Formats: sequence, structure tokens, C-alpha cells
Amino acid sequence: MNRASEPTRIDIDLGERSYPIYVGAQLLERSAELLGSVATRDLLIVTNTTIEPLYALRLKSAFERADRRVSLLALPDGEQYKTLETTSKIFDTLVAGRFNRDATLVALGGGVIGDIVGFAAASYQRGIDFIQVPTTLLAQVDSSVGGKTGVNHPGGKNLIGAFHQPRAVIADIETLATLPPREYRAGLAEVVKYGFICDLSFLDWIESNAAPLRERDASSLVHAIRRSCEIKAEVVAQDEREHGLRAILNFGHTFGHAIETAAGYGEWLHGEAVAAGMALALDMSRRLGAITQGDADRSLRLMQKLELPIAPPRLGARRALELMGMDKKVLKGQLRLVLLKRLGEATVTAVYPRDVFEQTLAEHFG
Amino acid sequence: MNRASEPTRIDIDLGERSYPIYVGAQLLERSAELLGSVATRDLLIVTNTTIEPLYALRLKSAFERADRRVSLLALPDGEQYKTLETTSKIFDTLVAGRFNRDATLVALGGGVIGDIVGFAAASYQRGIDFIQVPTTLLAQVDSSVGGKTGVNHPGGKNLIGAFHQPRAVIADIETLATLPPREYRAGLAEVVKYGFICDLSFLDWIESNAAPLRERDASSLVHAIRRSCEIKAEVVAQDEREHGLRAILNFGHTFGHAIETAAGYGEWLHGEAVAAGMALALDMSRRLGAITQGDADRSLRLMQKLELPIAPPRLGARRALELMGMDKKVLKGQLRLVLLKRLGEATVTAVYPRDVFEQTLAEHFG
Repeated sequence: MNRASEPTRIDIDLGERSYPIYVGAQLLERSAELLGSVATRDLLIVTNTTIEPLYALRLKSAFERADRRVSLLALPDGEQYKTLETTSKIFDTLVAGRFNRDATLVALGGGVIGDIVGFAAASYQRGIDFIQVPTTLLAQVDSSVGGKTGVNHPGGKNLIGAFHQPRAVIADIETLATLPPREYRAGLAEVVKYGFICDLSFLDWIESNAAPLRERDASSLVHAIRRSCEIKAEVVAQDEREHGLRAILNFGHTFGHAIETAAGYGEWLHGEAVAAGMALALDMSRRLGAITQGDADRSLRLMQKLELPIAPPRLGARRALELMGMDKKVLKGQLRLVLLKRLGEATVTAVYPRDVFEQTLAEHFG
Repeated sequence: MNRASEPTRIDIDLGERSYPIYVGAQLLERSAELLGSVATRDLLIVTNTTIEPLYALRLKSAFERADRRVSLLALPDGEQYKTLETTSKIFDTLVAGRFNRDATLVALGGGVIGDIVGFAAASYQRGIDFIQVPTTLLAQVDSSVGGKTGVNHPGGKNLIGAFHQPRAVIADIETLATLPPREYRAGLAEVVKYGFICDLSFLDWIESNAAPLRERDASSLVHAIRRSCEIKAEVVAQDEREHGLRAILNFGHTFGHAIETAAGYGEWLHGEAVAAGMALALDMSRRLGAITQGDADRSLRLMQKLELPIAPPRLGARRALELMGMDKKVLKGQLRLVLLKRLGEATVTAVYPRDVFEQTLAEHFG
């Protein structure tokens, strides 16, 4: 890892809600310095019990050295705890600690922690500041940009939440060293996604750098994270509230949600479900003639090279359809899908031949 | 009541979040017509078990006649149910009914219903539309403008919430006919408040019309509601997120919160606590020389004429101070107060002689 170098900075341009993302090594120690005039008062670091022993004290000390009053809360680890009840625990801690409107929440962990803490920040006293310190690749390339926060409901994922932008994101790539291989690979799924939907040359770059990426090479990681954040930021800046374009970021996700929900939260990692979901979306795009058989083969090969799953469980086409029905992307009764127009460009559409959709489901879900 | 006349319309100007308030008689029946292109799809009317038998079917039928699919949910009545758990029930109903992002929540009831339903609308699928149909005077003159939504936490009122503007407000003054006298008078407290903080000539008008107002005269009510909404709208438009000026709307509320919290939610009605709180704020403003003894006497006489309480319970100055400490208006460790600069003009300040503050507390709280 290139320890001595300065962090890469990406600026997310959202008017008065703009914020910087710092990507690099050994950033936890420099958090207070990087944040500057942000989060200068009371802080509550919220993490999970897996991350706590690894990084919480390092981050806490960094803030304490800069004279912040810092408290720490460790939640149980897992998507099954991404609930309103868990959010309530954060509220309880904030109230008990008499945190005021000028307090800042710090989300130290993966996407689950980021989503819960962001929602708590959006709702406590009708909105306080929060900082993201993502410790998984998925969170660094996806959850840290876009301002979507929320928790799950037994009836569906992310059904309760808010749009709330962080004041800053600190992505320390050294935290990825302790990430279990499955989780790391699940993060790569979202990296590839950006290539599929927006940037053919980035897809080329990923292909050429599949080996160093798989091996968590530092400079490859910094580039992959930066380019992913840039692409997501461009899309989000054009459509912050997901009225249209932004939905392309859900490439593979509609099919993926069915997989995750059918398996029960946590059995398939989000990124794994997205990978298998992208395989379906690629296949449907091929059936519609938008991409060639060669494009599809190449795409699947790349995902396999990154050791990503490309086959969903055989849960049956009917069950899959049912599970997609409660997906948030159902608009005006019609199921909108994210499909490719060509490799490197996605589109959101509710206009497609029903039989091709059903053939795709039958082929992959059984 | 002037049944035949057209409703008064007040436009709340908040850029792309602008919305109209309709004030008048027999508006429930005309809801769909008034809303026009708003709330044209699936609706969930959320009310409480007290309001349901009085007005829910009338409103539901009005929407059904206009071909909306309408569902109904009645929550238990009372401030003690203004919780995250109750909000969860709304989410459960929305998920079970497969309501999508284009659904609209309709809050039929007083401030409690408006606050809970507004927060549910802000959070369901990260924000759906909602309509306010306030059935109490307090809700018609206060909760329906400003976009504050939220629920209570055992540690304090409104600690969990969001800013979320309704798409429209329908204030049918006929719903006030069934309001218990205490609740009606509590609403008048907020009406007088607007006179105290912003508009001396409105205060004069209230003095001259105290008798018809107390008797719920229709045309007096329409004027009082309209002028109250206009004043609140002017203040909110200048400071939607309560960074400064907007806090003047909390005149009497900081002291009032102590009263409400000490007594347990529901024992003192919000408006009653605000009235007694305003008596304290008026007295402190007099002690500071901002208003005359004559102004203070006149103000208290007006509140008595409207049969509002002007003496808080003797809970002790120390306990009161403690209860005010968790109030959201504590900024940077200092207790900000809303005081009068003169009768008809308020200011928010953290700069005042501590001894005068303590004398005021000792005098009124014991």
C-alpha cells in the first residue's frame, strides 16, 4: 500500500449539499484533519461488533486527539439488524447522551451501517450531520455516494428511509485488508456494474486489471474506487431523488432483490445477488438484440474472473416475479427494468416484450 | 356557517415544494375536486379512533366518487401514541396494501396525526406525497404549515422526525364543531401567539373578536385561520429548516415543553402549555423592559378572555430548567429563548441576564 501518498479527493457536486470523498491508505488516523471544519463538536461513532475491535478505537483516538467529545455504539452485525428497532437504539443513545442538533453521527462499517446511521442522522431532531467511514469495498464504491439511507421492512428492503447526504466520506483502503474474500468480491460486482452501465473504457480497464484487483492491490483499488464514485456521482447529480436516470444504478438489482429476498436476508450477499442479477439483465439485453452474444460472453467471463456468481438459485419464475412486484422500481403498476442499450450504456424502461422477460426469468430461475 | 361560499385559498410559497391551504366550510366533501391533479392514485387515509366515526367515511366517499382507491387506518387517539411504534403500524399497512411510491397518505385529525403521518410519508420509500386534513384548530393554524413532522421519544418531544411538506392542506372549519371546548381553546393559544410575535393589528383584531372566536363563529374562524397561516408561512418561507428566525414560532414553547413533559404527555394540552409558557415569556420580556406592564396585563387579560391558562404548575424552577435542557432549542450548550422585543415582535436570543431568567422561573414554577 502506498502509505506516504496524499489521499485522492473526489468532490460530489450537489449544490449546498456538496461533500468530498477521500480515498487512500491510513486515512482513519487523519480523519479529524481531513474533515477540517466539519464535525467539530460532539460525535457518536456507530459501528458493528465485527468492525469495532478492528478500527473503532483508531478512529475514536484520531478524533479525540483533535479535542472532539466522542462516544461509541456497536450494533450487532448483519443485514437482519437493518431495522427500525436498531435505528431506535441509536436514537436512545443520542438522547441518553444529550446529543444536540450540532452533533455528528459517524458511520464506521459497511453498507448496512451506513444505511442505518444515515437514516438515524436524517431523522434525529429532523436531521443532523453524518460522516461515512466505509470499511467494505461495496460501501466505498456504492453506499458512500448518493444519499440514500434506510432500513428494511419484513415486506421488503429499504422500504423505510430518507435522502440524506453525508458531510464527507473517508474511504481508507487499508480497512479492506480484513474483509472476508466473499465480501470483497461482492464489492467488485458493483465496480463492474459501473463499467456495464456507463463506461466501456472503465470496463476495459477492469478486464486488464482483474488480477491485481482480485488481489487487493492498493493503486488498482484507489483507481477503481475513484472511478466508481465519479460515475455514481455524475448519475446522482443529474437525478438526486431518483425520478428517472438514477435508476440505471439499479442494473441487476431488480433481479437481485428477488434473489436476496427469496434466500432470506444475508444468505446471498448484496453484491453477489447483484452479480447474478446482472447476468440476467445482460442475457435479457442480448435477447432483445441490444448487445451481442460476444458482449454477453465477455461480460460473464469477466464476472467469473472476479469470482462472482452468475447463476441465481432456481426459485422459479413465478416466485421471482412475485418478489420483484414489491420492489420500489414498480411505477404505476408496471415493472421497470434496467437494461443495456449497448455494452457501457444502460437505460430504464417499462416497454419491452413481455415474452422475452418471461423467457429470461424461466431460463435462469427455472 | 357560510356554506355556499368558496373556500379561502392561501398559497405557501416554497419553490418546488409550494402548496395551497384551503380554508372554509364543507370542504371534506369537495376534497378530490380541490386537490385537482394531486393525490390522483392510491390513498391511505390515516386518522384516529375518535375522528374516524365523525369524518372518515365522508372523506373516503369524496375520494371514491373521484375514482381513487382509498384505504383507511385508524390509530389510537392521544399524544402517548405519537411514537416510532405507531409510525411502524402505518408502514405495515402500506407494505401489506402494496402501496407504491406514487401513493399518497392523507392525515385526517389533529396535530398528532399530522405529525406521525407526515413522518411516515417522509420515510416510506424515502418519501411519498401526503395531504393534511386538519380537524383541530391547533392543527389548522399551526401543524398544517411548516413541514415539520415527527414523533416523540421517551427522552423528549419530536426528537425523531423529518422536514416534509404536504402537497395540500384542506382545513374544513365544520370539523371544529365537534372539538371539545378545551381543545378548541388550546388552538386559540396559537392564534394569539401569532399576534404576540408578529402582528400587533392582528392582536387588536383578536381582542375585538374574542367573543365570536370563543363561540366558533364561522367568518371569524376563517379570518383567524387564514391570518395565522399567512404569518407562519411568511416566517417559514424565510427559514424553512429553522436555522434562525423560524424559532420565533416557538414563543412560549420552551417553557411550555417543560410543563408538558413534567405533567406527562397529554395531561396538559399542547396549546394550554404554550399559553402558560407565553405568560412566562411575556413576564420575562416585561422584566427585561421590552414590553410595558400595561402590555403584559393586556396580554394576560386577552388570554383569560379566551379562557386560556396563564399559570404553570408549581414544579419548581430547578426541575423546569432541567426539563428545558433537553429541548431542541438548546444550541451550542446555551439555552436560547424566544422573547418579545415589543408587543407584536419577537426575537430569538441566548443573550440575557441569567438572574432575570431565574427570577422568572422561580416566580412562576416556584
